[in-house]
Amino acid sequence: MASDTKKPEWAPEGNCEGFACRVMDGVEAGHDGISTYKSTKPAAKPAVRHKRAQLTPEEFAQGVLRGERAVLGRAITLVESNAVKHIEQAQEVLKLLLPHTGNSIRIGITGVPGVGKSTFIESFGCHLIEQGHKVAVLAVDPSSSISGGSILGDKTRMERLSRDERCFIRPSPAGITLGGVARKTRETMLVCEAAGFDVILIETVGVGQSETTVRSMVDFFLLLMLAGAGDELQGIKKGIMELADALVINKADGKNKLFAETARSEYERAMHYLQPSTEGWTSHAYTCSALTNEGIDNIWKVITKYREITEESGVFTRHRKEQNIKWVHEMVDDHLRSLFARHPGVNAIVGDIEHQVASGQLPAVAAVQKLISAFEN
Amino acid sequence: MASDTKKPEWAPEGNCEGFACRVMDGVEAGHDGISTYKSTKPAAKPAVRHKRAQLTPEEFAQGVLRGERAVLGRAITLVESNAVKHIEQAQEVLKLLLPHTGNSIRIGITGVPGVGKSTFIESFGCHLIEQGHKVAVLAVDPSSSISGGSILGDKTRMERLSRDERCFIRPSPAGITLGGVARKTRETMLVCEAAGFDVILIETVGVGQSETTVRSMVDFFLLLMLAGAGDELQGIKKGIMELADALVINKADGKNKLFAETARSEYERAMHYLQPSTEGWTSHAYTCSALTNEGIDNIWKVITKYREITEESGVFTRHRKEQNIKWVHEMVDDHLRSLFARHPGVNAIVGDIEHQVASGQLPAVAAVQKLISAFEN
Repeated sequence: MASDTKKPEWAPEGNCEGFACRVMDGVEAGHDGISTYKSTKPAAKPAVRHKRAQLTPEEFAQGVLRGERAVLGRAITLVESNAVKHIEQAQEVLKLLLPHTGNSIRIGITGVPGVGKSTFIESFGCHLIEQGHKVAVLAVDPSSSISGGSILGDKTRMERLSRDERCFIRPSPAGITLGGVARKTRETMLVCEAAGFDVILIETVGVGQSETTVRSMVDFFLLLMLAGAGDELQGIKKGIMELADALVINKADGKNKLFAETARSEYERAMHYLQPSTEGWTSHAYTCSALTNEGIDNIWKVITKYREITEESGVFTRHRKEQNIKWVHEMVDDHLRSLFARHPGVNAIVGDIEHQVASGQLPAVAAVQKLISAFEN
Repeated sequence: MASDTKKPEWAPEGNCEGFACRVMDGVEAGHDGISTYKSTKPAAKPAVRHKRAQLTPEEFAQGVLRGERAVLGRAITLVESNAVKHIEQAQEVLKLLLPHTGNSIRIGITGVPGVGKSTFIESFGCHLIEQGHKVAVLAVDPSSSISGGSILGDKTRMERLSRDERCFIRPSPAGITLGGVARKTRETMLVCEAAGFDVILIETVGVGQSETTVRSMVDFFLLLMLAGAGDELQGIKKGIMELADALVINKADGKNKLFAETARSEYERAMHYLQPSTEGWTSHAYTCSALTNEGIDNIWKVITKYREITEESGVFTRHRKEQNIKWVHEMVDDHLRSLFARHPGVNAIVGDIEHQVASGQLPAVAAVQKLISAFEN
């Protein structure tokens, strides 16, 4: 499966804006419709095209459903491509796979760098596999397309997992915007579910809005923390604690154990001030050690309990439906924004208008009228 | 000035969707482009038209700048109207007034019903007036258009303020959406500044996103609270504490005083876990009593200090510019959304597509492609 994660294969479309169709531009545009069009990279041909014999959507679907890793990898590469023809093919494949998706628990995992996400996933993932689960580990890392680096890139911290046939690890797709990265990860998640993976772990590093984005595609959101009170806690990003269905203090081992317990009760108290992330579920703080595996099994118990309760109440299914519809409308909004941002008439005046508004020469509503009429003509 | 706040005058356009032009529809549409068009109310003629002799934009501006209350009231009524011709006129007036706006501190005040917003504003406003300030009290109450009621409606709790010439009180404008209500309040705020009011208090009841909306139009955001620990605190809406530049425990009098102090330190600890609302400013919790006026003066000291620090650092001015530009783009987005929502081709298929997505028959990206091509044809 190493071949599935070699850069050429999983991130060809980082260089493919040249191929990107309008709809996808919209989708890619994320919160900044313009950014997509700033790329000066040459439009390279998608890697896929030159690889092996092209598969039909049916062949892709059958291979994935049979759980063939090579086909799974290629299907994901197809899903990740921005090339027009690939997008059409990918949607064909997804249509065939959809009836076989959704049979998993989708778990988002976030935490600041250094909190030990990779080691936690290694330990947690191995525990799940021992329980007889098939685990797919994906990542949403909007920074990877800029930095070139990617979380999950360093597999050494997930040695056991990455070598296990019951686990599939996929680094963050390259993408210009968070919206673009997220779209691919959402679809990759579906492909993995169709391939029979019943636990999906989606890791994200706290860049921009990535936690919120990941929260909107998972069933359960887990926030990893380190022991440390007072000022360190200031590092928590606005509202993140309110997204969490569970808060886990990692590295609760050795002499850290006591600090971790103190931090846990501190966070527990803090969470008391926040609204629950999920209807009918009260989020709590826990401790664990990815090093000694202590507390790891308990976290899975918590998640299992969460699934029972939310499936019972119908919240589980309702959330997934709402997530899908919300996602559609977000992509539509992104597209509309980029349509607007790329409109020549708008581009000709927007800078000047923004200046006039900022300097108090032009009322905001009048500015909107000017921009809109430029867009409509 | 009572006449300025009689319903017929300050909220005629609650019945004027019939006149609303497309741009304004977009602006009005808020987060739900469709809702604007559900109104079954008959399109009544704007009240203004039949009142006194129509003023020219120049006459409006001169009257406002001279601080003539009657003209001020009429100018705000014009700003609040949805009638096409009034919108054009209002923008003319605003253009003339803009150079004279901005010379105020804009303070947002929120808190759950029963926290004593009105009595706090009465006490706080009177204190400011005694300090030689001119105070305008506005409200953003998205519920008023539905319930017909409005915060600030009950003036009895602001008896002294409402009778004072140095104060101008304006109830929440009627509007179909929060976006619509907010636009009018933003522009009313500018008119009041041009009329020489140097402190603007914008009250909002915690309905939907109203706090976030008000936060985006003020310099300083104040969250009113009541004494009471534990479960009561759960009532705080997600992220609200993180918007606050100051948290004030009201009704700290009599035997409540001790509870209030306890609550204050509780909240102080809670805020410790949150990111500061404003760069370079640490939000704290305070107690006060609108009844005995105890602590009221201190809150003004805090706000004055805030202004000094943020003006010094440039954050004050930068925020206002960013708020204006952000507002323009929000209105543009609203318009684009409503343009899309009203597109016949889109309307014909959106329900069916949402159903297919929710039931897992259609991939989200494919759904977007269908919707977008329907919009573009």
